[in-house]
Amino acid sequence: SVVTANKAMLAYHRAELEELAKNYHFGYEASVAGGIPVIYALRDGLPANHIMSIKGIINGTCNYILTRMMKEGAGFENVLADAQKLGYAEANPSADVDGYDSAHKLLILASIAYGINAKPEDIMIEGIRTIDAEDIAFAKEYGYVIKLLAIAKKRSDDEVELRVHPALISSEHILADVDGVMNGVAIVGDKVGETMYYGAGAGGDATASAVIANLIEIARSESPAAMMGFNKPLETGLKLANKGDISSKYYIRIEAKDELGVLGKIATVLSEYKISVENFMQKNKGNLASLLLSTHIAKEDDIQKALLSIETLDCIVKKPVMIRIEG
Amino acid sequence: SVVTANKAMLAYHRAELEELAKNYHFGYEASVAGGIPVIYALRDGLPANHIMSIKGIINGTCNYILTRMMKEGAGFENVLADAQKLGYAEANPSADVDGYDSAHKLLILASIAYGINAKPEDIMIEGIRTIDAEDIAFAKEYGYVIKLLAIAKKRSDDEVELRVHPALISSEHILADVDGVMNGVAIVGDKVGETMYYGAGAGGDATASAVIANLIEIARSESPAAMMGFNKPLETGLKLANKGDISSKYYIRIEAKDELGVLGKIATVLSEYKISVENFMQKNKGNLASLLLSTHIAKEDDIQKALLSIETLDCIVKKPVMIRIEG
Repeated sequence: SVVTANKAMLAYHRAELEELAKNYHFGYEASVAGGIPVIYALRDGLPANHIMSIKGIINGTCNYILTRMMKEGAGFENVLADAQKLGYAEANPSADVDGYDSAHKLLILASIAYGINAKPEDIMIEGIRTIDAEDIAFAKEYGYVIKLLAIAKKRSDDEVELRVHPALISSEHILADVDGVMNGVAIVGDKVGETMYYGAGAGGDATASAVIANLIEIARSESPAAMMGFNKPLETGLKLANKGDISSKYYIRIEAKDELGVLGKIATVLSEYKISVENFMQKNKGNLASLLLSTHIAKEDDIQKALLSIETLDCIVKKPVMIRIEG
Repeated sequence: SVVTANKAMLAYHRAELEELAKNYHFGYEASVAGGIPVIYALRDGLPANHIMSIKGIINGTCNYILTRMMKEGAGFENVLADAQKLGYAEANPSADVDGYDSAHKLLILASIAYGINAKPEDIMIEGIRTIDAEDIAFAKEYGYVIKLLAIAKKRSDDEVELRVHPALISSEHILADVDGVMNGVAIVGDKVGETMYYGAGAGGDATASAVIANLIEIARSESPAAMMGFNKPLETGLKLANKGDISSKYYIRIEAKDELGVLGKIATVLSEYKISVENFMQKNKGNLASLLLSTHIAKEDDIQKALLSIETLDCIVKKPVMIRIEG
């Protein structure tokens, strides 16, 4: 029998491990969301459900940083430095703030829900470095919070979206109050509807709680359970969806020279790609202007092309920032 | 093998059933909080933890009524009538609004967490009929929401509190956003800290989700798991605490004639029982006054005696209403 908390290993090698573990217990509850028994919930609690979506706040470092940015209006770099001092972020914070840790955990959950064997390099992974106080201010103004989400979503009978990126979510959503270093995972099943699991995502005691749960499971049972709960899969033949095929609402921040005609040029590009604007805010700073806007539902590919095109405009001083809006 | 969703049966007969089920599977996930796999979470996800407390919003009818009262400032009777029209409340709503349904579910969770075999008549059960719009207004003013909570709390090494009653909880707490017919259960483990489980508490599909999870567990495993997860108990010898021994903050609403000296008389009674006031609001209606106050931590017995004593004062027009404050 094996019990592990090593999510990076599972992110890359879980299919081989499942093959090897056929006749052994293989416990990995601690690999995702620390002390929250979310793997038990997904594998043993919801096996009657086709999973429609999983949305997880599963990196405490990012959530701590974003929560403080939301509450204090502080900038990313300042809060990161503080988080490093407090031990909530590593000296090299890349695995956390660039989204890789969340991606590793997402892939594990997606294997259980969808039996899908993707690798980190196959999926969209964006971190939180580009988010700044203006984005936070816009989010607040329109009733959103910003969270780093790990998302698995069944898009059709044969396709699954897997992606990690910051997202604006409604401040009314049950995940919006998952603050600080805490983790939360919202799982929608076709029968059960939306469920949510909340708790400490890291720390020695929380991890021990999950590891020991696996040990007790092994002690209690005689024959090993299927590692991913998938001896007779509910889902089969699902493929990973193309990254560019997502549809979503989008938030965009564009920094430009404050001169005549800027808004017109940007609006022209957006309409070229059939992107329509829902909310718009402009903030001027000296001879620069920040244009903050959210769109109606658009296609990821169109947004990406529009942003590239906007970036080449003379009046643009910085690569535009885009954050997806997840309901 | 047996799978059941019958919580009333389990509330009264789970100890005998566990004895009878020794060599059989006995699944009852659907008996508490419908589609939320909270029994799996408690039994299989957190067995490494001594459970410090369980606080559950586990009656959708009450939560629907209280949520609408909070959001609309409406009165209990009006919202109840509406809930009955919409099918969220029974023609005879007593099992829900008087707290019995929550108590049945609480006893099941308490058996798993504490191996304690109490019956509904052994524990404190209060419903939500006495709550009115003024209580809601006071709660809002001081940053609380009102929820019907089912509480199991380990008070000491040998005592457990079990109680169902409405409570003021901080609007910042993760349970505060469990609204409408949804259920939420917050479980604090000594290792894992606070975890929370959220989802649909009732409805055919949510119940089916839980029943089928049990069936799949049975199909997947060879030997039956201990019904309460208690073959080798982590907790032993715990006793039910006396109802009067609770310590808590309290909210009190006193309706009195608006005449000279009323406040003095009430304050005298409170100080007699060493109860000190934290917040105070007075609302006048014609020649009547509502005195709304919250206390610092006090003993349940003292509060009960003080309320009896206040009720006998000449100036009091109605039995005072008390709601406990749970952090």
